[in-house]
Amino acid sequence: MKEVSSRSIKLMDGFWKKRQDIVKNVTIKSVYDRFFDTGRVEAFEMKWKKGDENQPHIFWDSDIAKWMEGVALFDSITPENEEKIEHLIDLIEKGQEESGYFNIYFTVVEPEKRFQNRTEHELYCAGHLMEAAVEYYRLTGKDRFLKVMCKYADHIEKVFKIDRSAAFVTPGHEEIELALVKLYSVTGEKRYLELSKFFIDERGKTIEHTYGGFTDGLYDQCFLPVREQETAEGHCVRACYLYSGMADIARIYDDKELKNACEMIFNDIVNHKMYITGGIGSTHIGEAFTIPYDLPNRTAYTETCAAISLAFFAHRLQLIEPKAIYAEVIEKVLYNGFLSGISLDGKSFFYENPLEIIPELRERDVCIKEKPHSPITERLEVFGCSCCPPNVIRFVAAVGENVYTYDEDTVFVHQFMSGEASFDGMKITQETDYPLSGKVTIKYEGPAKTLAVRVPSFCEDIENENGYVYFDIEDGMETEIDFGSPVYFVESNPLVHENCGRYAVMRGPVVYCAEEKDNGKCLRDICIDSSAEIREEYDENYSLPVIYLKGTRRKKNHSLYYKKSDERDEVIVKMIPYFAFANRGEGEMLVWIQAK
Amino acid sequence: MKEVSSRSIKLMDGFWKKRQDIVKNVTIKSVYDRFFDTGRVEAFEMKWKKGDENQPHIFWDSDIAKWMEGVALFDSITPENEEKIEHLIDLIEKGQEESGYFNIYFTVVEPEKRFQNRTEHELYCAGHLMEAAVEYYRLTGKDRFLKVMCKYADHIEKVFKIDRSAAFVTPGHEEIELALVKLYSVTGEKRYLELSKFFIDERGKTIEHTYGGFTDGLYDQCFLPVREQETAEGHCVRACYLYSGMADIARIYDDKELKNACEMIFNDIVNHKMYITGGIGSTHIGEAFTIPYDLPNRTAYTETCAAISLAFFAHRLQLIEPKAIYAEVIEKVLYNGFLSGISLDGKSFFYENPLEIIPELRERDVCIKEKPHSPITERLEVFGCSCCPPNVIRFVAAVGENVYTYDEDTVFVHQFMSGEASFDGMKITQETDYPLSGKVTIKYEGPAKTLAVRVPSFCEDIENENGYVYFDIEDGMETEIDFGSPVYFVESNPLVHENCGRYAVMRGPVVYCAEEKDNGKCLRDICIDSSAEIREEYDENYSLPVIYLKGTRRKKNHSLYYKKSDERDEVIVKMIPYFAFANRGEGEMLVWIQAK
Repeated sequence: MKEVSSRSIKLMDGFWKKRQDIVKNVTIKSVYDRFFDTGRVEAFEMKWKKGDENQPHIFWDSDIAKWMEGVALFDSITPENEEKIEHLIDLIEKGQEESGYFNIYFTVVEPEKRFQNRTEHELYCAGHLMEAAVEYYRLTGKDRFLKVMCKYADHIEKVFKIDRSAAFVTPGHEEIELALVKLYSVTGEKRYLELSKFFIDERGKTIEHTYGGFTDGLYDQCFLPVREQETAEGHCVRACYLYSGMADIARIYDDKELKNACEMIFNDIVNHKMYITGGIGSTHIGEAFTIPYDLPNRTAYTETCAAISLAFFAHRLQLIEPKAIYAEVIEKVLYNGFLSGISLDGKSFFYENPLEIIPELRERDVCIKEKPHSPITERLEVFGCSCCPPNVIRFVAAVGENVYTYDEDTVFVHQFMSGEASFDGMKITQETDYPLSGKVTIKYEGPAKTLAVRVPSFCEDIENENGYVYFDIEDGMETEIDFGSPVYFVESNPLVHENCGRYAVMRGPVVYCAEEKDNGKCLRDICIDSSAEIREEYDENYSLPVIYLKGTRRKKNHSLYYKKSDERDEVIVKMIPYFAFANRGEGEMLVWIQAK
Repeated sequence: MKEVSSRSIKLMDGFWKKRQDIVKNVTIKSVYDRFFDTGRVEAFEMKWKKGDENQPHIFWDSDIAKWMEGVALFDSITPENEEKIEHLIDLIEKGQEESGYFNIYFTVVEPEKRFQNRTEHELYCAGHLMEAAVEYYRLTGKDRFLKVMCKYADHIEKVFKIDRSAAFVTPGHEEIELALVKLYSVTGEKRYLELSKFFIDERGKTIEHTYGGFTDGLYDQCFLPVREQETAEGHCVRACYLYSGMADIARIYDDKELKNACEMIFNDIVNHKMYITGGIGSTHIGEAFTIPYDLPNRTAYTETCAAISLAFFAHRLQLIEPKAIYAEVIEKVLYNGFLSGISLDGKSFFYENPLEIIPELRERDVCIKEKPHSPITERLEVFGCSCCPPNVIRFVAAVGENVYTYDEDTVFVHQFMSGEASFDGMKITQETDYPLSGKVTIKYEGPAKTLAVRVPSFCEDIENENGYVYFDIEDGMETEIDFGSPVYFVESNPLVHENCGRYAVMRGPVVYCAEEKDNGKCLRDICIDSSAEIREEYDENYSLPVIYLKGTRRKKNHSLYYKKSDERDEVIVKMIPYFAFANRGEGEMLVWIQAK
């Protein structure tokens, strides 16, 4: 399979174009300003000295790097942003050592600890800087940053692979594996690909050191050699960045064992450990996967970056083999568990994306000062650990990369977004307001091929082969298809104990939720009549309709316990797309709702 | 109101006589043996020295004291147990200092810290020893232990009230307040009563030191002067022992303000913070009350001792004024949240009594070594902190004290247990197999009075005034009453988010539960048809019937998510009394079950 990069696709009006515009016009500046305010930009000047305030954090390089990459992934750049990036490159160039080494924290805070502490995000930062350099080069053709990062990559190769002089073998936070593949893809330098493969092959040959308190090897995926791993374990973002790198290497080297491991791990996620929103990470403790079917809603960790990383992984598997499940998972992430991470106005973010909010329970432990962790209930413009906001920028900027793949005979259409894609002598134009409606018009220009269009799983009317419908196409042909946009109820496996008796309301690929703002408190008490008529009302805020459903709820009662009564008040329940929750102040929110 | 002590009542065959026999014949020995094995008995020899193993714990005095009290609360004692107690009294007498002071930990481990550390259970241990001395004197007439404890009480009075030379004013763990009232009741020494009142009056005048990390004053109920407290806060056992002492003082001094505070606090518990089992304590963090309506089932703390302490509090309020709610709460505790604390064979215990068990979720945090706290799922013979087992002994031994109160005109019957009570020239004989059936025959001998019989709230057929039905009785009269033993479904307030859509199945005062042993896994998926026929089958193990209900559950499915299907398998659900859960090995258990 071949990739159609996001640079080959120009989105036109539609759901994702609107999001891209918000990110381009609002988020990029907002995130930069917050990073500037918090000293992340200044940190690149490497002027911090012991005793100064605002000590650079081990992951600040990566925050800025992801911002740079995000800016560069769009099809154009403003002079202001180019100036900001050039300034940052000046500082990186200046800060880079003769050896090629570059890291803020390990230059100004603990220079004696270079490549000594596996868990300290050193290679993770390097990876993100490489990704940024690649995309800045791709956008502008300017190779100064790329050269700086190649020099750093050469240094890493020397230290880790040739001299083996670092205190550890593989990074505690993966990322460099997939970054090195990108560096290879733009430079053609095979040493970078082999260095990536080296990090992947070495992982888990022995259990390497991680933070105290974590089970040996699970937290950072070194419990077994990667080819023997069958389950998704540990810190979700670390895990899926690794799995993404593994999938890249499996594809490029046609490594069947590695591909098999990737598939088993992916199936473990999708069949046992993924929220209906495409979110992953059932616990904040280690930001980690837990056990199969353990998917608590109120305390879901489901970090925005983790959803993104799962889409990265699925995207790379899709490049090996087009299976509908990969595109389905990417779609889940896109419209739900990733998109919930950014506010509608593009300025504020969630790090965690729970599927249920009951604000007062955050403060339930009244008799202790420091309350146990629970997800925040209002979006913030910046976090202490602010990996998510710039990750959102780059994911939205490159969202088009998920739409097509192709091989000699077939062009696959995996996602539905209005836009023009030009690649390899072909041009595909999609016209659609998906997911508002399910109508998609696909116009093709190019040599005769087979067109394989994914049929979303909610669409049960279109006959398909393993999730794709196939057409023979010729130059100038136009295909129309309508998946519909049904509202339907979804249940989860009975082993997901928490969801028993509860259902998710979906419309097309979009998960809906009820909010206190529309429905009052005690959302968990509402019971929807799933056979009653459903009313939709288009809401410009969401580019989608809100849904009105008939239901009942119990009458107010002042007793704590009382005999079962069947008296219930009839109510109309308003539900909005899950991705838009908590955009109207703090309040209860619920995805898994009672229905009969 | 006057008390009818458990010594005035001889239980005869029936539910509680059977429990008393098990405790008398099995539990007393079993708990002593475990305490002996763990060094708690030997600790009274005060031979421990720095460097020795098995350092005495700050609450070991109280563990043994409660065991002694429990033994003494029965109507007879075996020579072996009398010998054990006499031996312990020898050691206590020997260990008591000239001043009157007695405490194992602060004699052998930190003698320099006497009365310096408010949180270290010193006065709590003193209180339990006083209670034990009182009951041993009452049973045997031997006053050696009582004199020892009076001497200690005198010393405490001097240090805390006269010299004020202790480093704190009120105890961090309450208990001595109610113990001093008992010491007064048997000695007639008013100074002890006044010392109790002193501890109560002083509490909360300033916020005193507690363990670090706790909110100032809440954990140990000193956030306000007790008369200004309106809500139940902090560590549940501490709280209810204090509230019990407050109720004693309110009654004896006819202190309206204190009575009012007690009633407000009691109502806060009953209306907002009590499980349907009579259990209290919604979090293990601080073993504490949380916020109103926060009653999670799987992580309920609901310590056995906390349920007992709530019954103590209700019992004392009942002595001030006979309100049916007090007897209702005692009954809830008796048949549910307390009784679940001891195994059917009388040998093993639960410290925590959750309302739901899903064993595998205990291990959900796979990637960290030390799993977060969750209740144990199998009963143990002894705990490191083993306050509950001997508390069970004394509570069962004295269970009869909850049955009657009386004043000049009226004799109140609050609980239903077969037995003979003789007090103040009256004799009441109850014949009943309650709660197996609701039939109670009450025979009265004595002067003409009014008999007030509580009508349990599940009985809706008998007209009553605020929960009591009144009869004029004369010598030799017999009254028969039948409350029935209905099986019924109970719902909780919609504000108890977790229970929305779920119901408790009760039979008379007994809460029932479903267990994996009878119903397989995924109990939360079962939905009972509450209108279908219910079958009962008497089970000797429980002295009660098990219940068979019709219901449905979802078919097995291998997907994690799928469209809502209405296909369900019909099943017969077997439920057993909640108090008997986890007597047949580890497995899922559920109280709040779906029903329609």
